[in-house]
Amino acid sequence: MMLCGVGLACGGCSRRSEEAKAEQPQAVAVQASAVSAPDDGQWLMASKDYANNRFSGLDQINAGNVRNLKLEWSFSTGVLRGHEGAPLVVGDTMYFVTPYPNILYALDLKNRGAKKWEYRPKPASASQGVACCDVVNRGAVYWEGKIIYNTLDAHMVAVDAANGKELWKTKLGDINQGETMTMAPIVVKGKVLAGNSGGEFGVRGWIAAVNAADGKLAWRAYNTGPDADVLIGPRFKPFYARDRGKDLGVSSWPADHWKIGGGSVWGWISYDPELNLIYHGTGNPGPWNADIRPGDNKWTAGVFARDPGNGEAIWAYQWSPHDLYDYDGINENVLLDLPINGKTRKVLVRPERNGYLYVLDRQTGEVLSADSYVHITTSIGFDLKNGLVLENKSKTPSLGKTMRDLCPSAPGGKDWNPSSWSPRTRLLYIPHNNLCMDMEGVEANYIAGTPYVGASVKMYPGPGGNRGEFSAWDPVRRQKVWSIKEKFPAWSGALATAGDVVFYGTMDRDFKAVDARSGELLWKFRTGSGIIGQPISFRGPDGKQYIAIADGVGGWAGAIVAGGLDPRDETAALGFVGAMKDLPAATNQGGAIYVFSLP
Amino acid sequence: MMLCGVGLACGGCSRRSEEAKAEQPQAVAVQASAVSAPDDGQWLMASKDYANNRFSGLDQINAGNVRNLKLEWSFSTGVLRGHEGAPLVVGDTMYFVTPYPNILYALDLKNRGAKKWEYRPKPASASQGVACCDVVNRGAVYWEGKIIYNTLDAHMVAVDAANGKELWKTKLGDINQGETMTMAPIVVKGKVLAGNSGGEFGVRGWIAAVNAADGKLAWRAYNTGPDADVLIGPRFKPFYARDRGKDLGVSSWPADHWKIGGGSVWGWISYDPELNLIYHGTGNPGPWNADIRPGDNKWTAGVFARDPGNGEAIWAYQWSPHDLYDYDGINENVLLDLPINGKTRKVLVRPERNGYLYVLDRQTGEVLSADSYVHITTSIGFDLKNGLVLENKSKTPSLGKTMRDLCPSAPGGKDWNPSSWSPRTRLLYIPHNNLCMDMEGVEANYIAGTPYVGASVKMYPGPGGNRGEFSAWDPVRRQKVWSIKEKFPAWSGALATAGDVVFYGTMDRDFKAVDARSGELLWKFRTGSGIIGQPISFRGPDGKQYIAIADGVGGWAGAIVAGGLDPRDETAALGFVGAMKDLPAATNQGGAIYVFSLP
Repeated sequence: MMLCGVGLACGGCSRRSEEAKAEQPQAVAVQASAVSAPDDGQWLMASKDYANNRFSGLDQINAGNVRNLKLEWSFSTGVLRGHEGAPLVVGDTMYFVTPYPNILYALDLKNRGAKKWEYRPKPASASQGVACCDVVNRGAVYWEGKIIYNTLDAHMVAVDAANGKELWKTKLGDINQGETMTMAPIVVKGKVLAGNSGGEFGVRGWIAAVNAADGKLAWRAYNTGPDADVLIGPRFKPFYARDRGKDLGVSSWPADHWKIGGGSVWGWISYDPELNLIYHGTGNPGPWNADIRPGDNKWTAGVFARDPGNGEAIWAYQWSPHDLYDYDGINENVLLDLPINGKTRKVLVRPERNGYLYVLDRQTGEVLSADSYVHITTSIGFDLKNGLVLENKSKTPSLGKTMRDLCPSAPGGKDWNPSSWSPRTRLLYIPHNNLCMDMEGVEANYIAGTPYVGASVKMYPGPGGNRGEFSAWDPVRRQKVWSIKEKFPAWSGALATAGDVVFYGTMDRDFKAVDARSGELLWKFRTGSGIIGQPISFRGPDGKQYIAIADGVGGWAGAIVAGGLDPRDETAALGFVGAMKDLPAATNQGGAIYVFSLP
Repeated sequence: MMLCGVGLACGGCSRRSEEAKAEQPQAVAVQASAVSAPDDGQWLMASKDYANNRFSGLDQINAGNVRNLKLEWSFSTGVLRGHEGAPLVVGDTMYFVTPYPNILYALDLKNRGAKKWEYRPKPASASQGVACCDVVNRGAVYWEGKIIYNTLDAHMVAVDAANGKELWKTKLGDINQGETMTMAPIVVKGKVLAGNSGGEFGVRGWIAAVNAADGKLAWRAYNTGPDADVLIGPRFKPFYARDRGKDLGVSSWPADHWKIGGGSVWGWISYDPELNLIYHGTGNPGPWNADIRPGDNKWTAGVFARDPGNGEAIWAYQWSPHDLYDYDGINENVLLDLPINGKTRKVLVRPERNGYLYVLDRQTGEVLSADSYVHITTSIGFDLKNGLVLENKSKTPSLGKTMRDLCPSAPGGKDWNPSSWSPRTRLLYIPHNNLCMDMEGVEANYIAGTPYVGASVKMYPGPGGNRGEFSAWDPVRRQKVWSIKEKFPAWSGALATAGDVVFYGTMDRDFKAVDARSGELLWKFRTGSGIIGQPISFRGPDGKQYIAIADGVGGWAGAIVAGGLDPRDETAALGFVGAMKDLPAATNQGGAIYVFSLP
């Protein structure tokens, strides 16, 4: 653990320490997030709330007693691939969606996790072949008696939460075109929102809204192509001039390339009910080899604010225009109301793959700050005036040339694994990576339903040798407050609680509880397999607070174990195998839910 | 729970209550077992000791504090089929062999089960196709720096316990002939003893001794065929006249049928160092359809006492001559010194598949008592004078005729899952079944390496509807003392400890601790998957007592889950599916080791 901001020399804590010092937190009373609902002890969507805070208001388990935490029961899912999912808790029932074959389990919280029922959607087995990075699923959403989620073969299903009966099933994508679905949907005003995966297969990215009532498609917005498809109309007001103009989703690409250009939506969606805006990221442009696609490649590697009613784009911003490094833009958008320069601003906080922690005005898309939270070589700083990363021109990869020491590597400073915000400590808890890579552009030819990457990549640990880190970030002071080094990438989600305890899991089988204020390790538990899931907290039928997490190593980072890959092929799993050769020595595959409470 | 022998009307507790009442325990001081070693806190063979007592002398965890038992860590094996194995503990290391592909893990007890190394023997994948009842493995043995075990493809391997390097690997059987190996070997005087599985594939059963030092075959004894092959010579002195004569292993079969007659050795081997005798059961004759094989089918469904030095048979006894019901004779032989009729006798106690609890003089093979411990319809009593079960002639199955209400069913009153003896309570703790079946003989033609069964079977619960039971049996009083009904067959092993706690697991995910004297449930823990493994206890590097068990439902009883079988085919898994249609609702597949201790 590394404590920052208390007079210690603390490399990498903030690239903008001078600015940060000038920026003192304001003594104004603001809600952590105006869009957080009061805590009812349930967990109805993967991110807990629309604001993606992942904060549990329960406080029975606290920094003083968490060392007594005890496993109450576990539940084997019977599936061994990477378990990235969040359990849901609705009333007395826990729900969990497994990786492919995407079984939905309903577990009885009144009877130590006894199986109430299971639902098997039987996704097409061929979908496994077009999943870039393990066959994961990140969770379901509860809405008015239904459990709704996506299947790997790009269908959305709704199941009766009471009995597991299928209510509707809607095909949203085509695995023959490389489209899969892995993300956890959310429901806004009766519409289920979700997008496609497949940025490494030349898909065209989209987000769709499906009527929760009957499974009918309400609208679909593409993230590349003509404005009509992107649902860009008269209400579209991007903050930066470069994002204004007609059909930029066509003109920022070589001819027709937008049709296979990526920009998928496989991460997180936030919603601000007051502004009535949803926020979703867009994935990397394809192929990775950027020589093949000159231009800004709009609207990939960015973020959209849209009207959930009809999908209309309100603003957009690209984190990484003409992305060079697979800096996928799908991470969580944490909605907070923060004092910025003496004024409470409605912001969107985003620990981004390119290594910068962004604070955006979520009404306009203006970048208020962007600070490095990891070691970065691919850029030399941030131009706040233009809202642009300053690229390191000496690190631009090109065809047939191996570019070395690219940091962060393709999975970025942080990948999909979501951070958590505590309104009590006013810190964002970020599980992230410390990885660099060598990258060589290679030829890529598009054939529908096959990999379309055009890059040979090899990853390795960044400075210090630790491949992961778990950091607490103060978005007002714009600095890291403390940080814990992890041997492997911190690939699980985070959970902050009102007991001032923060939970996360490691790929080498530790489920950890740390002090929310100091980062001190308070408790750890050795699980059966490595952890890449999302911890949650809930109030059980007995009134006690519980903590739950799934183990089951895998995902992109754990593909060497989940896919049984040969460690000698360092470029396998899009270059991740080279950095994870010792993971099989640390953990096997697994797949179980663990539920803890105090004795 | 049902308390017996205390004046309650108690069906099935003892069929011979009059005899039992006449038989009072003697007030003579005897060792529970002269062949139990003093407890060093390790667990070096699956059965703990040569006497197959499975008793841990550790007593930190006792009936008063076991309710505080807490999971310290778990370990996912990454394998999902049935986990019937016992972990070993040698010094600071735990070893565990998975089901096929039979990975051997070494786990660091000083570091909460971190993987030290793994060894993968890569058994032929075709071996899975000739495993009758899931691809289980029941454990390894430690001997002078080596971990030695059998692989599903009928090899025996020795691995350096320090580093996982393969020291030798010996082919003992041929999967093309239907031979597999699933049992846990033992080592006696430097020879590793183990036998083959395959009684449903027309194998010829044998037990082999392999030099632990170099993996060379020392001797092999067949259980059918000429005396020369069975290693019957001048020292062979069976107790009963019917077992005396030349080449009975040939003449008790139709011509040449002994070559495909079964009698495999896939259960447990005991050893009495004083008498220098090993004891091993022999499996069912093949095929199940007994019309095809008139005669006593020697030496199937029986037990041999042999000299471990050269394999010479000393005596033999058949539990079920001309077995009609797949009453495999491979269960554990628990070696005890007990007061019988006022005299201390060296006995072998055997809860047998045919439903009788036998006490044999282990020097001579004489049956001293045989009492029913489950509901029986296939026999009407026991002829102690001749040492023979009295068959129920009205229940003899035959070709093309369905015989109903056969109890116990094919897996018997108890299958392989081993019982445990406490020298403190002087009770034998037996996990067992309460199942009946309908059986129809059908034609069977022998083709090497294919199923050779000749019976259509459907199982269902016995009287009372519970399919399993966990009973405490007093072998001197010859009666059941208490009994716990279980929904599913009690398919795990048992463990008794000096803390007067008895542990076992259930197929519906409960690991239970009960009071050794009363059977009162003291503690239970909900595991991820159902339990069919063998609990053990050991002293950790920190001096604390630990309890360990693997979950991972499967085996013959759990084949519906382990093999994903269709519940509509009730005769699948040799008739077990019909009795287990609700198992998938209770548990998924799994595969993890759980290690518990007091806080």
